Amino acid sequence: MNLIQPKTLSGFMELLPEEQILFNKMYDTIKDIYEKFGFLPLDTPTIEYSEILLAKAGGETEKQIYRFNKGENDVALRFDLTVPLARYVAQHYAYLNFPFKRYQMSKVFRGERPQKGRFREFYQCDIDVVGNESLSLIYDAEMPAIIYEIFKKLDFGPFVIRINNRKVLNGFFEYLNLKEDSSEILRIIDKIDKIGLDNVNSELQNIISEKDKVEMIIKFIQIKGSNNEVIESLKNFNIENDIFDEGIRELEYVINNIKTYGVLEDYYKIDLTIARGLDYYTGTVYETNLIEYPNLGSICSGGRYDNLSDFYTKQHLPGIGVSIGLTRLFSQLLQEKIIESNRKCLIDLLIIPMDNDCLDYSINLANKLRIDNVKVDICYEGKSIKNKMKYANKIGIENVIIIGQDEINNNNYVLKNMITGEQNNIKYDEILKILC
Amino acid sequence: MNLIQPKTLSGFMELLPEEQILFNKMYDTIKDIYEKFGFLPLDTPTIEYSEILLAKAGGETEKQIYRFNKGENDVALRFDLTVPLARYVAQHYAYLNFPFKRYQMSKVFRGERPQKGRFREFYQCDIDVVGNESLSLIYDAEMPAIIYEIFKKLDFGPFVIRINNRKVLNGFFEYLNLKEDSSEILRIIDKIDKIGLDNVNSELQNIISEKDKVEMIIKFIQIKGSNNEVIESLKNFNIENDIFDEGIRELEYVINNIKTYGVLEDYYKIDLTIARGLDYYTGTVYETNLIEYPNLGSICSGGRYDNLSDFYTKQHLPGIGVSIGLTRLFSQLLQEKIIESNRKCLIDLLIIPMDNDCLDYSINLANKLRIDNVKVDICYEGKSIKNKMKYANKIGIENVIIIGQDEINNNNYVLKNMITGEQNNIKYDEILKILC
Repeated sequence: MNLIQPKTLSGFMELLPEEQILFNKMYDTIKDIYEKFGFLPLDTPTIEYSEILLAKAGGETEKQIYRFNKGENDVALRFDLTVPLARYVAQHYAYLNFPFKRYQMSKVFRGERPQKGRFREFYQCDIDVVGNESLSLIYDAEMPAIIYEIFKKLDFGPFVIRINNRKVLNGFFEYLNLKEDSSEILRIIDKIDKIGLDNVNSELQNIISEKDKVEMIIKFIQIKGSNNEVIESLKNFNIENDIFDEGIRELEYVINNIKTYGVLEDYYKIDLTIARGLDYYTGTVYETNLIEYPNLGSICSGGRYDNLSDFYTKQHLPGIGVSIGLTRLFSQLLQEKIIESNRKCLIDLLIIPMDNDCLDYSINLANKLRIDNVKVDICYEGKSIKNKMKYANKIGIENVIIIGQDEINNNNYVLKNMITGEQNNIKYDEILKILC
Repeated sequence: MNLIQPKTLSGFMELLPEEQILFNKMYDTIKDIYEKFGFLPLDTPTIEYSEILLAKAGGETEKQIYRFNKGENDVALRFDLTVPLARYVAQHYAYLNFPFKRYQMSKVFRGERPQKGRFREFYQCDIDVVGNESLSLIYDAEMPAIIYEIFKKLDFGPFVIRINNRKVLNGFFEYLNLKEDSSEILRIIDKIDKIGLDNVNSELQNIISEKDKVEMIIKFIQIKGSNNEVIESLKNFNIENDIFDEGIRELEYVINNIKTYGVLEDYYKIDLTIARGLDYYTGTVYETNLIEYPNLGSICSGGRYDNLSDFYTKQHLPGIGVSIGLTRLFSQLLQEKIIESNRKCLIDLLIIPMDNDCLDYSINLANKLRIDNVKVDICYEGKSIKNKMKYANKIGIENVIIIGQDEINNNNYVLKNMITGEQNNIKYDEILKILC
């Protein structure tokens, strides 16, 4: 028989068990905190009607989407979790309680040209709070608290949640009479970390003829200081524009309330240069960076939007959400050795029967331990005790219990610590104490 | 703007939050028990090369598979988790420890004609133990122990794990010189629960000319009694065939060892009529039925196979596995009202601030509770306390804490039980006691 070479598609992450254990731990940490803040689980289908998924999408998305025909249906794989949420809330509106807080942590698909750190199949971990007609601004302060809890717990070192408000930007550009060019201006400003202030200045001059306006923009994005100082500077910036003023009021409210959630001041910072997606967000926007690893880019982003589902319903559904691109984040952390897999198994204990006459006694022990919520496996294979110990070493288990005829006769157990080499005769209750 | 009707594709399950909570609870129960028995998590890509997924597949699978071109690649969505496992083990062979015990609980896709209880996208919850060259028969006894733990814990009432061995069947048909017809015979036997013994008899007569052979088959499938009685009857059935004898020896060993795992005798039973997939399984096979709901069919099936990955590698990889079709099972249980969603939220407590002046105090309480691992949400929305209590009722939360100026002044909390209506002034520590 001709063998088929076993391989996966390029851009599709597949992990070894020890990496998968690490990935799942991160996944569970995020999930637990989402649930702790009252978000409800959702699991929309992977495949949807193309018409629905592409209602809002523009050029890039259409090119990247996995779209095909099945029977009479023109279908596609979801490319994010926001569009399915928009469809979900419109479809099940009558059965949902608002504000509707949901999390979804699922795979999405984008047929991008694969490059380092980019995946065609990847997990997004989204939360959104969707209001019916209106949604309190306090949620804009709660979001950073959730991000804070997650990255504190995940423990990748110091991080900062950068916060801006689109109304400040929109009002500013409206005042400057540059509304038409605002997308282009924001695109240039967004590059400041990469190209520096001088290059931003000259690129702005290329598209804006009035020199004083460029100067004002440069002055604006150079506003620095503590969060309160930035608010004060904005207030004194002498922009007469209602949207701008509203943006400042919102930003001030959000900044003042974040600390109520116990978020330490070092961890959130107004950054007037961030804008996120150009036509989606309408108020508060967030990006999150690991301070020691700036090249990772934003690891958690999102913001406030005016209307989630306008393509599918006349209901007015304002909301706010953030997303963690878990696959990308995980792969970068692993590559940079910020995280390392240290467990090759999930069990707490491996039982090693000396020979087949010790099987029953070994199985009985495993039964008891599992009732006591211990994860345990029995080493059935391996012809010699040496082979079995080798297996224990390979799976990286710390504690093994060796069972021979002596132990059965004396009704006790030999516990061996594979790291220290220490070996002790112990009773059942002592096993539990050592493992817990 | 023309609205697009929000809808999902037919055959794709989508749940309301209260159903999703119930689904996830089942999912987590299964996952926890898989991990307790030492299985490692795996998460293979949803999309693979068609060539790989279809290496083994025959007619039906080819028709049902979601297959399409993306760029230059002929790709498809996985239709089960066994083929990806086969590919995975062949591909990563050098990095895995054997016996390799893995679980995967993921969505698979089959474009079947949708009918009641059938889905085009559904979760399979698989475990497999894959040996390198050989795999101890004791695993065949451990599998029922795992199934037993799961369905005991899920608590859908009494169930029975039906066990057979393909070698008993194969040896029997070889002895009768009916090897060629065995697929057809097994197909007929498999219908016994639906069409009854007489119809099986006449259908067998249609394809087997020798009357005495039909009689032997009928006698064979009528073997009844306790597990030990069935083994004895098989031994005394006077079939001279080595494979048949080997099958009996295996069956006897498996049956004798299952009870060592603490499985009660009522829960497993030799059933000589079950055969499962016709050319895949080679030894022990399982089906599981809920006794009070026979129309659900088998809710957990699987068995022993000789060689997992023969399409992708020359390594000889025997294994054993079982699978739970969770989406189908869940949907049937819900429909038959065997399970019912009783939680509309995942939080343990809802905090209701009387007005915005109570926000800080409410948020501080939420912070403290979350540190103490309580899942808690704050009711920010709703203009009146009446509105907020209405929301609490709608989400079905049992305990709410109402915070007004009095509580802030006295540094205590009003806890209201929404079911009993009882209302008490309590201190922080008492909240924890009531919730835990």
